[in-house]
Amino acid sequence: MKHFGDQLSYRIKELQNPSMVGLDPRLKDIPSYLKDEAINQFGKTPEAVAAAILMFNRGLIDAIFDIVPAVKPQIAFYEQYGHAGLKAYEDTIAYAQKKGMLVIGDAKRGDIGSTAEAYADGHLGMVDVFGAPTPMMNADALTVNPYLGTDSIAPFTKVCKEQGKGIFALVRTSNESADEIQGQPVGDQMMDELVAGLVEGWGRDLIGESGYSSVGAVVGATYPEDAHNLRLLMPNQIILVPGYGAQGGTAEDVKPNFHENGTGAIVNSSRGIIFAYLKDKVNERAYADAARNAALRMKDDLNRLF
Amino acid sequence: MKHFGDQLSYRIKELQNPSMVGLDPRLKDIPSYLKDEAINQFGKTPEAVAAAILMFNRGLIDAIFDIVPAVKPQIAFYEQYGHAGLKAYEDTIAYAQKKGMLVIGDAKRGDIGSTAEAYADGHLGMVDVFGAPTPMMNADALTVNPYLGTDSIAPFTKVCKEQGKGIFALVRTSNESADEIQGQPVGDQMMDELVAGLVEGWGRDLIGESGYSSVGAVVGATYPEDAHNLRLLMPNQIILVPGYGAQGGTAEDVKPNFHENGTGAIVNSSRGIIFAYLKDKVNERAYADAARNAALRMKDDLNRLF
Repeated sequence: MKHFGDQLSYRIKELQNPSMVGLDPRLKDIPSYLKDEAINQFGKTPEAVAAAILMFNRGLIDAIFDIVPAVKPQIAFYEQYGHAGLKAYEDTIAYAQKKGMLVIGDAKRGDIGSTAEAYADGHLGMVDVFGAPTPMMNADALTVNPYLGTDSIAPFTKVCKEQGKGIFALVRTSNESADEIQGQPVGDQMMDELVAGLVEGWGRDLIGESGYSSVGAVVGATYPEDAHNLRLLMPNQIILVPGYGAQGGTAEDVKPNFHENGTGAIVNSSRGIIFAYLKDKVNERAYADAARNAALRMKDDLNRLF
Repeated sequence: MKHFGDQLSYRIKELQNPSMVGLDPRLKDIPSYLKDEAINQFGKTPEAVAAAILMFNRGLIDAIFDIVPAVKPQIAFYEQYGHAGLKAYEDTIAYAQKKGMLVIGDAKRGDIGSTAEAYADGHLGMVDVFGAPTPMMNADALTVNPYLGTDSIAPFTKVCKEQGKGIFALVRTSNESADEIQGQPVGDQMMDELVAGLVEGWGRDLIGESGYSSVGAVVGATYPEDAHNLRLLMPNQIILVPGYGAQGGTAEDVKPNFHENGTGAIVNSSRGIIFAYLKDKVNERAYADAARNAALRMKDDLNRLF
């Protein structure tokens, strides 16, 4: 039986690489030769944007699939181009999986009842197409927002159980205003600690042979002092850590998200990897090589921690 | 200059109807004759599901556009069918607007930085298509999740200011687990009251001639005692109230969401209106008439309050 927590843990170990690459394609930063090719085929349309994004992502995936365990497409950068963009999101997921990568859809969805079911089924599970259960976006895992509480998460954990998928619930985000809600004192703890307790509970029935649950948590890299505490509160959660690299987090900053044996966290970098060719000032046609090199540097940087 | 808060307030007054209809198309409940028509054209595919949804929605909109100020498509019911479903969402928005209705996209999005910008631009504003600013989903307003704080909302209020659009931030949801986070005591208030204070602040620069801001709030109908208090904390917010009808809320339950003069709130019903033909046991081909009748009954029910 497939189990996301195990799959991700083992793949991190196998590749000796606790990192993932965020596929956040900003049109302005995609190499011109790919955009020209897309415009030649589709004109200056959203379909051409989607085609450029997909070509860009395929190049990245081809360059990193054997060294990086997972990719995390941020759906907002696809969805903003409407249905054409969402098609590129779907095709990106399918392509990465074909290459053996795990895919975490970064969608931060959260809603109640049958609406939450629709999100869970559409993003991770199967939807009914005139009587035929059909996988639709089919990511391996999805980020979710906890603000609505346990019953808003239940449809996701149901799909995790039935189909071996995973979720990562937001606990602590890396933005400046995060404290307004997440950093408020509630009784003798902070709101993010309260949420961490909920997340630990949501994941208890989904702990695999690796010791890790298919219910993980998102904890931003910008609050190392909180990260240590949250790590203790969620011993069986894989912590997805955004904020490394372009967002300012260093390897030392993300260290408290790991257990002392160096397991239990996966660090994301988006811009720092996928647009490395801009920073490295290499020819845009070498963008994928530049991404591979940046991914290897990140791997080495993280491996020095333990 | 267009202003969402004013537009919605005036339209509610003009139609003497403080309600909106939630377009939450569940495939199993869509009339068979529409599904057959879609299958005949597209086979048993997600495209056929999308076609059935769009036909269903057009029939509903034709039946209610002159008596109901706004519709609220719940994007999860479209998005779950992938890019085909999202196309139906876009087409539904365009059709409702053509008929003069305001459209609130119920997406509950929430993210940080450039990701939040992508959501705001894609759902409400314009996105860059090779140098041409292009409206994409183009809803009049969007529901958003506040868990990430002020800087996650700023890209949305920016679009509200620049393009006359609106948002409704989740303050209190109508599900059983809502209390886990929203009902926690923080200092001398509850978390939902703290969030209400934030929402009030986010909307202060966006108050129109009507006295209402383009930044509204979502407050579920299942907690009338809290609703009164939240109403006081957010005097200039239009309160979007889900939970009426099929979800169990009565007119009396939603009353505290209104100011004493009967303004300042808009009540949503989804299933109770769009699938009224099932409850009324009328022929499925009369589903739109049944929806119109249900919408008129809801209008009367709410108008008895003040």
